[in-house]
Amino acid sequence: MKIWMLMTSLAAAFALVCGVSTLAQTGATVSFPEHYRMWVHVKTTVIGPRSPNFARNGGMHVFYANEGAVEGYRTGRFPDGAILVDDLLDAKEEEGVTRGGSRRRVAVMIKDSARFPETGGWGFEIFVGEERSKGSLTAEGKAACFACHQKGRDAVFSKFPE
Amino acid sequence: MKIWMLMTSLAAAFALVCGVSTLAQTGATVSFPEHYRMWVHVKTTVIGPRSPNFARNGGMHVFYANEGAVEGYRTGRFPDGAILVDDLLDAKEEEGVTRGGSRRRVAVMIKDSARFPETGGWGFEIFVGEERSKGSLTAEGKAACFACHQKGRDAVFSKFPE
Repeated sequence: MKIWMLMTSLAAAFALVCGVSTLAQTGATVSFPEHYRMWVHVKTTVIGPRSPNFARNGGMHVFYANEGAVEGYRTGRFPDGAILVDDLLDAKEEEGVTRGGSRRRVAVMIKDSARFPETGGWGFEIFVGEERSKGSLTAEGKAACFACHQKGRDAVFSKFPE
Repeated sequence: MKIWMLMTSLAAAFALVCGVSTLAQTGATVSFPEHYRMWVHVKTTVIGPRSPNFARNGGMHVFYANEGAVEGYRTGRFPDGAILVDDLLDAKEEEGVTRGGSRRRVAVMIKDSARFPETGGWGFEIFVGEERSKGSLTAEGKAACFACHQKGRDAVFSKFPE
């Protein structure tokens, strides 16, 4: 175990010195956030067909925060262990009423400063449809998540509305 | 205490025999559900301008359930203490994206079989805007709530989606 840790540290240090992303090297993964449906609802946003963002992100986005993330919203600094979920459902409009339908994907970001130092301490992952075990994001995808998210407050865009 | 219970029972029995609602007589009230924003999110539904129901109920409805209500969704029978909230926000659509805005009203239903025997054991109340102390429903309004809600499963329409 100690040898493995030493090797990992050396590899990470090497990559850092060489200016190479350590994401692929460390292979740090983000697990599916079980029970997130019981967490605190932050807000719901519907991206409809009239949005230029529809093809990529259309649907009903329901955002959830675990206890640590709620603290982060409050203090402005998200502690290790904070998790945010963007639960994307098909948005079905019938007779002027829009409801959430099938799950398109579950996007997750988790704060773990030790495991994700290259991306502001945040790990990103996306689980497509009802997939639970295997995330779909490539290393490049994760870097792209952070490239945009780093514009937020501690990499988070949303605020917690009362 | 026993005398009070006896008198209440007699009054209720009298009203029942006479076909009069006991709601006004018992004067049972429903308090504002503090901290409901920390409860479990059931679902979000947006009633838009194209709905015939828009004038009366338009906006973003965000439904929350306390622990007892989550048990009710699971078992089909809501225990005393179960509370459901319909948090109605203005729905603002900008460039195809619909977000929740100002609070229009907070509608509450609480299960308390002893206090609300006339309405299936459920007490109903509505708090307009950011009002917290005084509900706006008349006795007739409460009766109307139940008249519609009794068509649901134990007076609840929504199901808990995973």
